Amino acid sequence: MTKSILITGGARSGKSQLAERLTLELAADSGAPAIYIATAQAFDGDTEMADRITRHQARRGAEWTTLAEPFDLCAALRDSDGGAPRLVDCLTLWLTNLMLDERDWQSECDALVALLPRLTAPVIFVTNEVGAGIVPENALARRFRDAAGLINQQVAEACDALWFCVAGHPIKVKP
Amino acid sequence: MTKSILITGGARSGKSQLAERLTLELAADSGAPAIYIATAQAFDGDTEMADRITRHQARRGAEWTTLAEPFDLCAALRDSDGGAPRLVDCLTLWLTNLMLDERDWQSECDALVALLPRLTAPVIFVTNEVGAGIVPENALARRFRDAAGLINQQVAEACDALWFCVAGHPIKVKP
Amino acid sequence: MTKSILITGGARSGKSQLAERLTLELAADSGAPAIYIATAQAFDGDTEMADRITRHQARRGAEWTTLAEPFDLCAALRDSDGGAPRLVDCLTLWLTNLMLDERDWQSECDALVALLPRLTAPVIFVTNEVGAGIVPENALARRFRDAAGLINQQVAEACDALWFCVAGHPIKVKP
Repeated sequence: MTKSILITGGARSGKSQLAERLTLELAADSGAPAIYIATAQAFDGDTEMADRITRHQARRGAEWTTLAEPFDLCAALRDSDGGAPRLVDCLTLWLTNLMLDERDWQSECDALVALLPRLTAPVIFVTNEVGAGIVPENALARRFRDAAGLINQQVAEACDALWFCVAGHPIKVKP
Repeated sequence: MTKSILITGGARSGKSQLAERLTLELAADSGAPAIYIATAQAFDGDTEMADRITRHQARRGAEWTTLAEPFDLCAALRDSDGGAPRLVDCLTLWLTNLMLDERDWQSECDALVALLPRLTAPVIFVTNEVGAGIVPENALARRFRDAAGLINQQVAEACDALWFCVAGHPIKVKP
Repeated sequence: MTKSILITGGARSGKSQLAERLTLELAADSGAPAIYIATAQAFDGDTEMADRITRHQARRGAEWTTLAEPFDLCAALRDSDGGAPRLVDCLTLWLTNLMLDERDWQSECDALVALLPRLTAPVIFVTNEVGAGIVPENALARRFRDAAGLINQQVAEACDALWFCVAGHPIKVKP
């Protein structure tokens, strides 16, 4: 049985909607409500992100329980590990939070990868492709896209399935 | 029978050549000459775009009838809806035109999606992936890539087929 | 038998590791040590690139013979064409070198494409997707991403196989 799936793709490629639909199907099978683990946090004055969070919440509606966890994804997954499927949206914002807070993202990623096989309930991760444009001139942007690509590889390796989303439709890359 | 196809991919991934080959094959089947619906417009002084338009026209040659329509794609598709297959190149430039002219791109996209099932002759759309690089620092660029991704999703949903082009070769994502 | 493979993908999508694993498998089959043809060159003061070259060499270890060839890829492939498989990492840096040195990359690419069917031993190429982000504001960056896309198309056409790498996993696009 597929218990963990990583869904990746570019901005506005339909990853979140696909992940939500899939998580709700798993929730219907399990009889337990779906759990949404949000890594997004809107900083003061970031109205774009605040709008996006509000829009996403409105779309999800009442079928979901929402947990906000910008940093400690492992704790959120361990604490919510009953029968209900979890959707983590998304790993790229989680990495952003870790880097801005100057935490060691590689240790956090190692812990996540080690935790995955020990979880009981399904988990769907959403992440972003950020490495298929021209090399950024900004050194921080280059470090970020390197880290984002490495996290995607490591989590994909640990997951049972990997989907790549194009214009709202998944290409099933693994298994 | 597949009547509408969306071909997406990065810059210089071979989308246009693939779409042209496919449209000519459909034209040969139908016995009617292929129709090229160009959304590109070169503004004063934009020599890069003017060069690109000239190069693309030279490559297409005499097997094509060309219509230029930067804004009203629905009218162009309705008016040309006989037996001949149409190639629309491309949705991303169409969106650019709509946004620069401050038109409501979402209404235009809704109208296009509503029109598609009512068309008789085949239509091949070319579009661009613009969302798989690092998040742009420029707010307008972010709005544009969001809109481009949403149009791609909506048109892909309405089309019979979706191809993702990599280094000149298609991955058939849908059906 | 598949003799030439192009592996493409975004930054940190696992292309090099995949290519290295594949080349070592071919080397084990052939009984000859794998040959690494490095196109990277670190200019004075470019510590990022110097670090990357050192890291990659450390990962490869003693199973490889390394040739450094920033420009004349055809000579490197002809001269090394015995039984051992070659890994060329990567075409995008080769293009960068050619453009910075103001050489005619299209002629070099034509020569490479013409050479491929005449080679005896296998060759695996690594290249980068750089065209799936927003259009760069910088004209040189636009020329570079156009050239990179065209090289990818032309080499993909000449190769027996084309893989697109996502989060460390290949999508086999061709054959």
